[in-house]
Amino acid sequence: MPSETKTIASFSCPVPAPADKRVVLGHGSGGTLSSDLLHKIFLPALGNPTLSRLDDQAIFRVNRSRLAFTTDSFVVKPLFFPGGNIGSLAVHGTVNDLAMGGAKPLYLSAAFILEEGLPFETLGRVVESLRDAAGEAGVEVITGDTKVVEKGGCDGMFINTSGIGVVPEGVRLSANQARPGDRILLSGSIGEHGIAILAQREGLEFESPVESDSAALHSLVALMLESCGEIHCMRDPTRGGLSSALNEIAASSRVGMTLDERAIPLREEVRGACEMLGLDPLYVANEGKLVAIVAPDSAEIVLAAMRRHPLGRKSQIIGTVTGDDPGLVTMRTPLGTTRIVDMLSSDQLPRIC
Amino acid sequence: MPSETKTIASFSCPVPAPADKRVVLGHGSGGTLSSDLLHKIFLPALGNPTLSRLDDQAIFRVNRSRLAFTTDSFVVKPLFFPGGNIGSLAVHGTVNDLAMGGAKPLYLSAAFILEEGLPFETLGRVVESLRDAAGEAGVEVITGDTKVVEKGGCDGMFINTSGIGVVPEGVRLSANQARPGDRILLSGSIGEHGIAILAQREGLEFESPVESDSAALHSLVALMLESCGEIHCMRDPTRGGLSSALNEIAASSRVGMTLDERAIPLREEVRGACEMLGLDPLYVANEGKLVAIVAPDSAEIVLAAMRRHPLGRKSQIIGTVTGDDPGLVTMRTPLGTTRIVDMLSSDQLPRIC
Repeated sequence: MPSETKTIASFSCPVPAPADKRVVLGHGSGGTLSSDLLHKIFLPALGNPTLSRLDDQAIFRVNRSRLAFTTDSFVVKPLFFPGGNIGSLAVHGTVNDLAMGGAKPLYLSAAFILEEGLPFETLGRVVESLRDAAGEAGVEVITGDTKVVEKGGCDGMFINTSGIGVVPEGVRLSANQARPGDRILLSGSIGEHGIAILAQREGLEFESPVESDSAALHSLVALMLESCGEIHCMRDPTRGGLSSALNEIAASSRVGMTLDERAIPLREEVRGACEMLGLDPLYVANEGKLVAIVAPDSAEIVLAAMRRHPLGRKSQIIGTVTGDDPGLVTMRTPLGTTRIVDMLSSDQLPRIC
Repeated sequence: MPSETKTIASFSCPVPAPADKRVVLGHGSGGTLSSDLLHKIFLPALGNPTLSRLDDQAIFRVNRSRLAFTTDSFVVKPLFFPGGNIGSLAVHGTVNDLAMGGAKPLYLSAAFILEEGLPFETLGRVVESLRDAAGEAGVEVITGDTKVVEKGGCDGMFINTSGIGVVPEGVRLSANQARPGDRILLSGSIGEHGIAILAQREGLEFESPVESDSAALHSLVALMLESCGEIHCMRDPTRGGLSSALNEIAASSRVGMTLDERAIPLREEVRGACEMLGLDPLYVANEGKLVAIVAPDSAEIVLAAMRRHPLGRKSQIIGTVTGDDPGLVTMRTPLGTTRIVDMLSSDQLPRIC
């Protein structure tokens, strides 16, 4: 009845948002839900040509210099894991976002949100690890911030790092630069970061332990750029894994991609853990790997350069960019069948970085 | 007995850190505990000449440009308050940190940490407010990040903004530039942000409501710089209030300061609320005020410039820098007595920004 409807509508008590109008963990997964949030809330409000390119870093010009700028918050749980901790990860993640734009990383900011009751000793170990990672990557932390929230107000410690780098003349990498015929290069084996975190969280043990691959990739990128091969874009397959990184490039460049599953390096322990846990390694996070989309004539030159770097020794050409089915990534399995490699649709592993 | 001690020492269960070796809320207050954390943990690990200057922003050079870089995380509770919300605050706070170095703000990053269950509608309102504040301040948000943590993993929403600005030729402002004889200028009445937050949090009501003074100060700063007065340093007295900002400058410049309490603008409602709540307005946070340390000959010129700006209409000269008692800030009260104005020693108001 109309009169009843009217009474309800004028009632001033706030109506709780329905479940499908609230943030869920999958919105932080790096997959389709993350993309939804970006396209429904962030881009309509904040969109500008730079932000809307959706690269891992923004490039802007000041006088004659081209600078790269990026930001990343780290909420990884637990704070310490095999192969690193939230401090080293916060450096590697931001250095890599700069490097994926071809930038030489120069400066970082570090902003800490601490939970009341956090032991100084824990904080000290994280800060030292952050310092060591910054030192190894050749970047300086030049500005910072600390906030404290009451017990229960956050989970131990969150860190935001933002970074600034300088992009060499002539370097123009962007997710929208992939062209049909380009080769897809991957710098090493996948899934190690995600499995290391999950194993630590769940108390799983492997015969040979799986460590996070967390590492700064800027010097590998520098070698690749020095090879003078024609590189069109690069991305580090973090949240959402290799599959999400490639789907983003395919969508942004309006191209298809065909992968060869046998060419994708995967450690036996990671394969086993994924099988046991029902995870697909293509969707498991990496923190020290990159994919590069390279012109066909340059693929072997760039691959050789990658293999000369300790972090790229196991690099492989894993597939080809095609002009068919823009936005679609497919993979030939070892059985000779073809499967579609979608974006991650929800959260496989929350709080992985 | 030695043997017992040995048994206990070799027991592998982790010993909880004693209460005095843990983070407490006061470490985020902007007062002496914040300073302790900085000097005991962050600076020994990360210290470099730029970070150790402890200005609100780092200045670095790329080719012929001098750029400013700053970061700030926002954990304000509640998310919405009279005069603003976490979105507008996240823009104003970072724009002001750039402006205090004399920089023209250019670009921001925005990194969100969201709690599972947050209504899209709440997020949308915050993002629109952030967009509007950025638009008004003439800065572009060009890079961002979103993380989601499980329910209880954070408190609704935290935002980090980092900012980049360009410092005009000839401008050199730093907390270590105050000189005996300099005048201390304040751009308006104090304590409004802190009281607005507290009133909202505690459900207090005033006859005329107190709103946060949250505002972007870069155009006020631009007017001050155009006056060609000799400005030595500027700071926005946020966490820890006017007192902490002045104590930091006094310590950094190794000078004393004498304030005149009668000259410090204070709204009647804020005075009343502070008396009722047992707070000292000198320690209550501001988000749209600045203090400037100005050469004596330039004080009147700079003051006149400030008063021409809507955010500086109530500007006052509130004191003088002295060569006596380096690091000590004192204040003449209306009764003619003199009191010491220390740094805030603990937390008056946690999660104020």
